[in-house]
Amino acid sequence: MSTPVSPLANALPELPPLAGVTLGAAAVGIRYQGRTDVVMMEVSPGSAVAGVFTSNKCPGAPVDWCRGALKGRKARLLVVNAGNANVFTGLAGRRTCEATAEAAAALVGCPARQVFVASTGVIGEVLPHEKLVAALPALRKTLREDGWEAAARGIMTTDTFPKASSHTALIDGHEVRITGIAKGSGMIAPDMATMLCFIFTDAKVPAPLLQKLLKQGVDRSFNCTTVDSDTSTSDTVLLIATGETKHPRVPAEGGAMLRDFARALDAVLMDLALAVVRDGEGAQKLVRIDVTGAVNARSAKRVAMAVANSPLVKTAIAGEDANWGRIVMAVGKAGEPADRDRLSIGVGGVWMARDGTVVEGYDEAPVVAHMKGHEVEIAIDLALGRGKATVWTCDLTHGYIDINGSYRS
Amino acid sequence: MSTPVSPLANALPELPPLAGVTLGAAAVGIRYQGRTDVVMMEVSPGSAVAGVFTSNKCPGAPVDWCRGALKGRKARLLVVNAGNANVFTGLAGRRTCEATAEAAAALVGCPARQVFVASTGVIGEVLPHEKLVAALPALRKTLREDGWEAAARGIMTTDTFPKASSHTALIDGHEVRITGIAKGSGMIAPDMATMLCFIFTDAKVPAPLLQKLLKQGVDRSFNCTTVDSDTSTSDTVLLIATGETKHPRVPAEGGAMLRDFARALDAVLMDLALAVVRDGEGAQKLVRIDVTGAVNARSAKRVAMAVANSPLVKTAIAGEDANWGRIVMAVGKAGEPADRDRLSIGVGGVWMARDGTVVEGYDEAPVVAHMKGHEVEIAIDLALGRGKATVWTCDLTHGYIDINGSYRS
Repeated sequence: MSTPVSPLANALPELPPLAGVTLGAAAVGIRYQGRTDVVMMEVSPGSAVAGVFTSNKCPGAPVDWCRGALKGRKARLLVVNAGNANVFTGLAGRRTCEATAEAAAALVGCPARQVFVASTGVIGEVLPHEKLVAALPALRKTLREDGWEAAARGIMTTDTFPKASSHTALIDGHEVRITGIAKGSGMIAPDMATMLCFIFTDAKVPAPLLQKLLKQGVDRSFNCTTVDSDTSTSDTVLLIATGETKHPRVPAEGGAMLRDFARALDAVLMDLALAVVRDGEGAQKLVRIDVTGAVNARSAKRVAMAVANSPLVKTAIAGEDANWGRIVMAVGKAGEPADRDRLSIGVGGVWMARDGTVVEGYDEAPVVAHMKGHEVEIAIDLALGRGKATVWTCDLTHGYIDINGSYRS
Repeated sequence: MSTPVSPLANALPELPPLAGVTLGAAAVGIRYQGRTDVVMMEVSPGSAVAGVFTSNKCPGAPVDWCRGALKGRKARLLVVNAGNANVFTGLAGRRTCEATAEAAAALVGCPARQVFVASTGVIGEVLPHEKLVAALPALRKTLREDGWEAAARGIMTTDTFPKASSHTALIDGHEVRITGIAKGSGMIAPDMATMLCFIFTDAKVPAPLLQKLLKQGVDRSFNCTTVDSDTSTSDTVLLIATGETKHPRVPAEGGAMLRDFARALDAVLMDLALAVVRDGEGAQKLVRIDVTGAVNARSAKRVAMAVANSPLVKTAIAGEDANWGRIVMAVGKAGEPADRDRLSIGVGGVWMARDGTVVEGYDEAPVVAHMKGHEVEIAIDLALGRGKATVWTCDLTHGYIDINGSYRS
């Protein structure tokens, strides 16, 4: 893709080595030419794994494979390819996953179910597994502890910049690190999951606790974002703990000892989720939507998502038009309790409409200035209860049409 | 708007006079200059009325007014303006409706609640009712029995062509006529209602029966269409029976005597609903989506609507790309029962994928040719049950972004 880098792009943060993790990428030419497209990530024997996946009812074969593999709670290798999602490929798709996992497992001497596979790209075309499998031995030789950027770049599809985040946390006074990479740009409306995202830590945390923390964190981050309302068939988030950093044993219930770890994990997830929205296909603006005063948190989130997914709101933002009428429409179409005559709408910290009508003497100038920036904030107060939610999206521009009107050709 | 006429536009059909109805339009300059923007439609004293309205929780003041007026079951005048929707305008909005209805009622000598008002256009700006009220006496003098086209044009906003339909029906051997006009182009995802649509008949049908037939017909027509998933705050369909054609009295339960009338009403509703989709903002293609094999009809419709509202499916269609992978994604994200490995997808009468994978020896050529046309047909068979549904939408193009990124400016 020759799409220019998103104006909302983050620079990659510093990504120091993480004990027990090596990464590498190879140019296998499965779909793309002249760039890396297959990534391998190897972790210490005995690493614990957690995962959450798409809620789409037509998941890809790799999602099925990972759901099965997750039952073993242990990971040793990840193999990810970009350009072909291996979705809607029937029996051939399942065989590709099995063959890849078996070949990779043989390289390191582990059970096939400790190999996690993920694929992203075009849906409905058979992924040529012979080419993929043949590339694995050479790929494994490229694995390095400083291979983070190579891995983050190798999983990109319509992404215009690589996405990574790294935070540290203390477990009982011992510093551990959490580092993750992600890809995603279009087909983004995570629901219980997200696009491809791989997170590693050197902490030693049992798999059931990892799973609980990951689920909570994803609900607060990726599941509060949308680019285009289209929930992908391939959404996968894996969290792997190598346990290479020595710290006192974490109790089965987690509790206070993992509080700081959970905070750092949430920070990594939020960084990556926002990076995906910042790279939303065609995005020129990052949009934050805060809903308050809903009857409960679930209702608040539905209202926020109705606004975030409204093509009319998103095109107005692209046009730098603080069109509160479209926001009112989107609030009302959510189907959640709302009273038009108590509703207030603000943009960029300025309340434009209060209690169902425009604010007397409303001065559009500061709002117009805010709309011209790269980050737009919308506040919606329903004045019904104490439920609140925050979600993030991007605007809808000609770039989205350009990218998606010609993706396969 | 200087948007060119939709390539999917219908020509206006012949619109003969309908006994008991006169129509006219005036250029009042409420928002638009150099075109008509206020329409009046007068019907015989004692005409019965039925109506369905938006399910949006933030309806416009005119919708509130009409809901109240509908309780009287009688209509005498309709006053409709384009350019300002009178939505989210608080007390001022209610006063505009009252003042308009009272002034119009005084002109013909009827109660104010026999005047129905409707407004369409920008949301959140006060509608200057003095200007509107002042224009009514002269407007009434323009009413003519052949004013159908003038009325259909006077209610347009981003519409690129006027929309009307006329059918005849027999009631106990007596011919009656049903004629309707509609406007709508964007903010189209009718749910229990539609955009503005006014239908008239010279039959004599009691209001409760009209209401029942209208509700059924709207569910099968407008409520099976979407342009952009955004349910308007102003959706209004009114059906008015002047009773000017003499035929035997229709029994209270309707029954067989109204069977042909119901068929003709459904035909008018479907014509107008498809005309709105054909004029979807930026539309270059009319898309029909047939879902079969769902667990029930409700589930089939949800799946069909998930496909019809998917930005990725709609941009692929704009790009003339028969991207069945995106259709699979949209089926799966609907959240309805679906089994990826039984799913079949067809385009233009050609099954591309059967039972979860691409058809062996699939020849893309006829599908590519079909995609280049103005009408695209998508078939989805879930192979789970007997539920089926058909919905209509349009593609998502640069035109939609152009129109909506600059609508207010």
